[in-house]
Amino acid sequence: MARDVINDIKKLPYFKNFYYFITLTSIYNQYILLYMREFVVYSRTGKTSSNFRNLREGGRLDLVYQCILMALFRSHGIRKNVVFHAILNGSPKPPLELIVDGATLRNVRTDENTWESIIRNVLSGASHPGIYIKKNSLQQLIKDKKDVFVLEESGEDIKTIELGANPIFVLGDQVGLPRNEERFVLRYAKKVSLGKTAYLAAACVSNINYILDLREKTL
Amino acid sequence: MARDVINDIKKLPYFKNFYYFITLTSIYNQYILLYMREFVVYSRTGKTSSNFRNLREGGRLDLVYQCILMALFRSHGIRKNVVFHAILNGSPKPPLELIVDGATLRNVRTDENTWESIIRNVLSGASHPGIYIKKNSLQQLIKDKKDVFVLEESGEDIKTIELGANPIFVLGDQVGLPRNEERFVLRYAKKVSLGKTAYLAAACVSNINYILDLREKTL
Repeated sequence: MARDVINDIKKLPYFKNFYYFITLTSIYNQYILLYMREFVVYSRTGKTSSNFRNLREGGRLDLVYQCILMALFRSHGIRKNVVFHAILNGSPKPPLELIVDGATLRNVRTDENTWESIIRNVLSGASHPGIYIKKNSLQQLIKDKKDVFVLEESGEDIKTIELGANPIFVLGDQVGLPRNEERFVLRYAKKVSLGKTAYLAAACVSNINYILDLREKTL
Repeated sequence: MARDVINDIKKLPYFKNFYYFITLTSIYNQYILLYMREFVVYSRTGKTSSNFRNLREGGRLDLVYQCILMALFRSHGIRKNVVFHAILNGSPKPPLELIVDGATLRNVRTDENTWESIIRNVLSGASHPGIYIKKNSLQQLIKDKKDVFVLEESGEDIKTIELGANPIFVLGDQVGLPRNEERFVLRYAKKVSLGKTAYLAAACVSNINYILDLREKTL
């Protein structure tokens, strides 16, 4: 996305006009300065209807909420360069993809109760700015993406691996990725490691955001 | 604490007996391998009674829950070397200290609803393994501690600062530390920075745990 915007600017007839360029730069500032990041959480049991008593009992959708919190929220702000996907494989109509797009996300708070009603509403067919539901599987989602990384203890150190401009990170739920999904994803992805500690999925997301923040500061 | 245990072992009369030492090492394994970490979250508004409808409406106790989640939980395990403190300054009887001690914490899950009932129960005077309430202020808590650090953007880089063996990190809530508390704490503490991004308190905790994990791996 950042690259597209830069290319658009380069194609402009007045590109040689420095002041015009500066104006455009300030308009597109956030896109130029921020590389995109995507997170995909594979939830084996996350319910695909709104028929649950709370997120935990909705097939561990609480874990999906925790990942959304760490993926999209800064203090008093939303990370506009993050797109979050959860692939929900619970009953009654799996697989569904829940998408949370930081660029257009509105009317949200950080607590679990707020996200329980948001997720319940979108699963019932209601709309919410920046949140979308569609029929999609992990394999379908991944196979058109570049720079895909799967979190694994045995992977290459995240601090030294080449992540590309717009990396996409695939995480398992509390059980991990099913074997067949992992095998498929690894055709398109590299294994990357945060070290020897087994982190909560949400902590993985937070740590990756932190590492990418530091990386962007030094680019 | 880790150092105390090592010193205790060194003072033992049979220290020269290698096998005896090995036995002791395996008993005290977790203390020798893991340095202690403490986190203190100062909550301006966190309620000091159980009279709230949910954690968010309990003076943003949801933020305290998020910090507990990131401080104490690994995937399928509790960080036994972490002690978490929240100083609650909301009505009706502030300040109270909520302590969560990873070494003795039991019967917990990771979702917000579970922690809503735990926090409600201990604020009502019920007991829970590893969770304690006591009358205490931030100033009282800090003044007997060594290696105290306050998270601030302008502080020294956490990657280069000398953290000591058992650091304790003080974080503000969604508003930050009140000026007078900060001034007091800085008599005992150094400022430390995670970089230019303003993180959620819970993300700060997660990032610090990650940095300390990497540090311990290389010690």
